Amino acid sequence: MDTRTGLPVVGMVGGGQLARMTHQAAISLGQSLRVLSVTADDSAALVAADVRIGTHTDLAALREFAKGCEAVTFDHEHVPTEHIEALEADGVKIFPGSKALVFAQDKGLMRERLAALGAPVPRWRRVTTAADIESFAGGSWPVVAKATRGGYDGKGVWMLSSPEQAAELVATGTPLIVEERVPLRRELAALVARSPFGQVAAYPVVETVQQDGICVEVLAPAPGLSEARALEAQQLAIDLANSLGVVGLLAVELFEIDGGIVVNELAMRPHNSGHWTIEGARTSQFEQHLRAVLDYPMGSTTLTAPAVVMANVLGGQPGGISIDERLHHLFAADPGARVHLYGKQVRPGRKIGHVTVLGDDMTSVRARAVRAAKWLQEGE
Amino acid sequence: MDTRTGLPVVGMVGGGQLARMTHQAAISLGQSLRVLSVTADDSAALVAADVRIGTHTDLAALREFAKGCEAVTFDHEHVPTEHIEALEADGVKIFPGSKALVFAQDKGLMRERLAALGAPVPRWRRVTTAADIESFAGGSWPVVAKATRGGYDGKGVWMLSSPEQAAELVATGTPLIVEERVPLRRELAALVARSPFGQVAAYPVVETVQQDGICVEVLAPAPGLSEARALEAQQLAIDLANSLGVVGLLAVELFEIDGGIVVNELAMRPHNSGHWTIEGARTSQFEQHLRAVLDYPMGSTTLTAPAVVMANVLGGQPGGISIDERLHHLFAADPGARVHLYGKQVRPGRKIGHVTVLGDDMTSVRARAVRAAKWLQEGE
Repeated sequence: MDTRTGLPVVGMVGGGQLARMTHQAAISLGQSLRVLSVTADDSAALVAADVRIGTHTDLAALREFAKGCEAVTFDHEHVPTEHIEALEADGVKIFPGSKALVFAQDKGLMRERLAALGAPVPRWRRVTTAADIESFAGGSWPVVAKATRGGYDGKGVWMLSSPEQAAELVATGTPLIVEERVPLRRELAALVARSPFGQVAAYPVVETVQQDGICVEVLAPAPGLSEARALEAQQLAIDLANSLGVVGLLAVELFEIDGGIVVNELAMRPHNSGHWTIEGARTSQFEQHLRAVLDYPMGSTTLTAPAVVMANVLGGQPGGISIDERLHHLFAADPGARVHLYGKQVRPGRKIGHVTVLGDDMTSVRARAVRAAKWLQEGE
Repeated sequence: MDTRTGLPVVGMVGGGQLARMTHQAAISLGQSLRVLSVTADDSAALVAADVRIGTHTDLAALREFAKGCEAVTFDHEHVPTEHIEALEADGVKIFPGSKALVFAQDKGLMRERLAALGAPVPRWRRVTTAADIESFAGGSWPVVAKATRGGYDGKGVWMLSSPEQAAELVATGTPLIVEERVPLRRELAALVARSPFGQVAAYPVVETVQQDGICVEVLAPAPGLSEARALEAQQLAIDLANSLGVVGLLAVELFEIDGGIVVNELAMRPHNSGHWTIEGARTSQFEQHLRAVLDYPMGSTTLTAPAVVMANVLGGQPGGISIDERLHHLFAADPGARVHLYGKQVRPGRKIGHVTVLGDDMTSVRARAVRAAKWLQEGE
């Protein structure tokens, strides 16, 4: 507890934009997020008052960081499982716990557990040789290969079109799983939050639009999704949160296929598919995550408008007009666009912010959001 | 400009809850508010990354603080006018400027200027002796006496019922004005923001409910206010912002009387009557103030729900259940209530936070907001 305020201290490991936006939410709850940041210039470190510099792979730094925190949680999934176990053994309340988080960290364990729980997943297999992959493909290329650990934003995922490509990838020594290429209609995401008490709150199911493995748009609620399918996706996410013992947010990335849904990935933290909730839901995912890890009752997940679209702002080519000038132009063009910039150096393709637009009509809201994001990201 | 982000640095003098919530808004714009705070435990100092410790009456501290800021602005009106003039002479972009701010700092100058502009004001007079007050009252007591400088939250305002009370107040040596006691129906507030370019954005007119001189509730939009009266109030605020050359927010506190409105007070900063805008308007007053002082185009002021009510949370008696526990109870009782706690030590009657509730029906929204604020503030 912070003795100056009588309110709890939450520590977040990692200083990226998720920690930045979680700090922003913490301010409303009377809190100040404690951030463990690799550098003083990381996105969250630029705005938080209580920043500790250290790396998430350094157990001593993690132990020091956790002192005085009511709860410790994560901006990313890269803290070694054994370090989380060590903190748990110390009595630190760390959420999600090691027994849950491992299923977001390791795609092999995740697929095994999902299959055991009866959750719908693509056909898959752990592989160690090119022959394993060739056997899995059975002559039907391409297949999807994924690094079991460490992938994000399209990194750690490969589309393999031939035995030669498979051999080349295996030669790198990366631990791998392979999956069938799912004939998807589109991608969906179901976001829930679960508290230690066991209360679960579910957000409306959204459609996520990807380009080159990076989420570029999120449409809330997912347009044209039947109520039955939406309920199925929410129930699946609730069941997974309960079965895996998740505390905090769980984002279930889904493929919609003919006649159903299958699970693509799990994330156990605030997630890009939930950024729209800052303005588009009564309680943002960031506040909800804090409420969950502190075992507060969950907040309302009600939509605040009939149509909400979030579009990511990716870094453009260097040398164009400045981000500050582009912001002027955008604000002049669309006074209702909600901008979130992460304070990150612009690099081509890097997520440097997002824009959210709300309204009554999904088509026009989406056009505004896409235009706003493009406006902010384009260089010369 | 912050070279790490390519985005501007705004400095705010004062570390109270207005600076705290402005920092929260700055984060979305890719910024980190620089705060000049008297102590490291002030509300904003607890959450901002770039805090400088110093007092607003120390010109050297103000000059040091302003270095590297694109714009400097205020959490309160207590910076001496001559210091603001000195900073302006240094070339600092400080908003509102001394020529505008003085009308929010000095009630005598404000009343004179409003009268000169033809704005509706209560009958008033500067007074230096008890005889002046008695002559102003003309046998019709009570009259309202106000300290020309330094008042807030009911402090610096006295209801005088007799020549004896007038003599007692004059004896304190406080520079004073007196005003007729206006037969008001209710209080309203019109909030606008103006940029150096001259763009003005106006929020919907609200009703403010006061108790013992402290604002306890704000209803947006003001229930039952005719469109003509609302437009009149907005136009008055826009005219005043232009005439006074305000840059940033201007809150015009109004009395609604039979057949019209009169101006009660002016404030040139984010204002308690605008806290509802965080969730209740597309652009919050805090972001709007930043956009104004940076000369960005203004954001949309559209309501996000038909009825929005903000209720202030005042500190209760010490010894009750903790604020953290009360927060649990409130969240369980009303998952849709939006809580904002300022990280301030609880003292009876002190504003320690606010709650905002949004919905379709003003009566039920108001009841929820009042209940939520009471829930948070009650001690045993």
